[in-house]
Amino acid sequence: MPEPRIPAAQVRRFLATAFEHLGMPAGDAQVVSQLMTEAELQGSDGHGVIRLVPYARRIRAGGINLKPDIRVVKEKAAMALIDGDNGMGHLVMKQAAELAIAKARQCGIAWVGSRLSNHAGPASLYARMALAQDMVGMYFAVGNANHLPPWGGLDMLLSTNPIAVAVPAGEEPPVVLDMATTVAAYGKVKAKAQRGEQMPVGWMIDRQGQPLTDPKRAEEGFLMPIGGYKGYGLAMIVGLLAGTLNGAAMGSEVVDFNHDDVTTTNTGQAILVIDPDAFGELDAFKARVDKLVRELRASERMPGVERIWMPGEQSHAKRIANERDGLALPAALRTQLDTFARDLGIPPLQDT
Amino acid sequence: MPEPRIPAAQVRRFLATAFEHLGMPAGDAQVVSQLMTEAELQGSDGHGVIRLVPYARRIRAGGINLKPDIRVVKEKAAMALIDGDNGMGHLVMKQAAELAIAKARQCGIAWVGSRLSNHAGPASLYARMALAQDMVGMYFAVGNANHLPPWGGLDMLLSTNPIAVAVPAGEEPPVVLDMATTVAAYGKVKAKAQRGEQMPVGWMIDRQGQPLTDPKRAEEGFLMPIGGYKGYGLAMIVGLLAGTLNGAAMGSEVVDFNHDDVTTTNTGQAILVIDPDAFGELDAFKARVDKLVRELRASERMPGVERIWMPGEQSHAKRIANERDGLALPAALRTQLDTFARDLGIPPLQDT
Repeated sequence: MPEPRIPAAQVRRFLATAFEHLGMPAGDAQVVSQLMTEAELQGSDGHGVIRLVPYARRIRAGGINLKPDIRVVKEKAAMALIDGDNGMGHLVMKQAAELAIAKARQCGIAWVGSRLSNHAGPASLYARMALAQDMVGMYFAVGNANHLPPWGGLDMLLSTNPIAVAVPAGEEPPVVLDMATTVAAYGKVKAKAQRGEQMPVGWMIDRQGQPLTDPKRAEEGFLMPIGGYKGYGLAMIVGLLAGTLNGAAMGSEVVDFNHDDVTTTNTGQAILVIDPDAFGELDAFKARVDKLVRELRASERMPGVERIWMPGEQSHAKRIANERDGLALPAALRTQLDTFARDLGIPPLQDT
Repeated sequence: MPEPRIPAAQVRRFLATAFEHLGMPAGDAQVVSQLMTEAELQGSDGHGVIRLVPYARRIRAGGINLKPDIRVVKEKAAMALIDGDNGMGHLVMKQAAELAIAKARQCGIAWVGSRLSNHAGPASLYARMALAQDMVGMYFAVGNANHLPPWGGLDMLLSTNPIAVAVPAGEEPPVVLDMATTVAAYGKVKAKAQRGEQMPVGWMIDRQGQPLTDPKRAEEGFLMPIGGYKGYGLAMIVGLLAGTLNGAAMGSEVVDFNHDDVTTTNTGQAILVIDPDAFGELDAFKARVDKLVRELRASERMPGVERIWMPGEQSHAKRIANERDGLALPAALRTQLDTFARDLGIPPLQDT
């Protein structure tokens, strides 16, 4: 029997009820639930519903401020720095994105950074917020656990600090890049271990700098940054712009939120919004993006390659299918959510 | 006998004289020569003196406008779009960087894009211009020859579009990342072929998507983007922001300047400047950068690793050494320059 598909609206309702029962104001619970459901819809399942339980654990431990005073602490015409007051990252970054969009409309471009924020879900969520206004969005964040040493080093002082960029197109889906600065995500390593498979050379190295291909030995090594020292440089730069610039945590200051539910993470993020309308005729720009997309897609292909994908095109297709058919949550996650709902005293997630 | 070291001032003078004799106004010749010498000083020798002869070839063929009317064609408080009128890229991007710095001082951040520009040397030159003002610089450019197919494809529709970011530090050297979006540069492949060595797996793939390790077969394959499809996505995004957004060439419109001296390249570039002073106390920011740099450098090292380098730290050391000791140009390049000088009717490059 195939897994039941659950309408996104049910998932959103369930999450909102859960957060309200955890003490979050109703309006904030709506915002967080909506963004977590968005993540699930676009296929970012590692940043979607699966996060409810760890978020709840952190909220109960007092590691999240449920009544934050999220406010602008520094501001100029085209920039702002937001103090998140240790609130949920979704609330902080939604506010940051909206402010950046408003400022970009005035100034052509704007940058809003955050400190004292928290994990906010997949990077592309916030870059994509600019798309509804026909603008370009770029998002940078300091990850909430350090998995990378500096190049040649052994101390894990850097996170897989992600970059997301969203560019509106005309008739084509928007181009949306959402990438960590490592070759493989840690979740992929765990999946290989579960299936008893070896990892390809290039995913991880051991403490001698040699390729590590046995996922069961993952604890003995490190994820590889993309392009070797280049990815190390990118991870550092993203951290400088999203963390250090804002007075947020970076390097050894980063709190591992997998192993610590209490300490304020002081997460730093940044969003950059560019208004293409300032550069010329908007429709002409979108037509040029369409032209490029079609040209790349029409490239002659390598043997065995069925289709050339644009960044974000597969997520776009998933979003459309999931909105139409509903979300398919893994059975183990459903069981976890049922237990969670019972403990919290709320109705379980409904299939229809 | 070691190669003679030539004072940077001599190189600058020689280049300026050459450009003036090619018909460039004296002030512009000064600017271009100074930036090409800067490139040489920081060790970007592929973008330094070696470019004189191909630039001269293009100038003589009429592919460069020596009396360009470089002007702002679109402008808002925090952005501008510059039409380079097919002038030397160095002139266009210097003006772009200066404008972005002035706007960032007012607005906290600014973005200036270019179209109808040309090759401007190493990306970091322009990102670094922000450092003298204690600001952060970011630079994106569309490369002047397509070396990359889209991921899974065979048609070379993308260039190794570079990204550079420069972040000021306090007592430490600035952090300067300057990277192409491919694992190896084409020059490294040629060097392997000359030495009769094989390339490591991961530098190139052939038309079947298999690793290509024989550099003599380089023409049969493609450079690999960093992180596979991630680097492809980055190359595309950089091209969208530096090219498509500005109405500059991208995809199949890119003119291969190695094989065509005449067609207007319509090169697109973009510079982003952030003023850390808008985000809080400047000295505190620089102290935080220093702290991070020192922490990364002090990491425990892998066996055989002598030192952990920051992005840009080796270029910084080269610049200091070259300013003190002079520039060591390869003998073959000296010979080429001597011939060039004789043909042009200018004095040869002087050693002292």
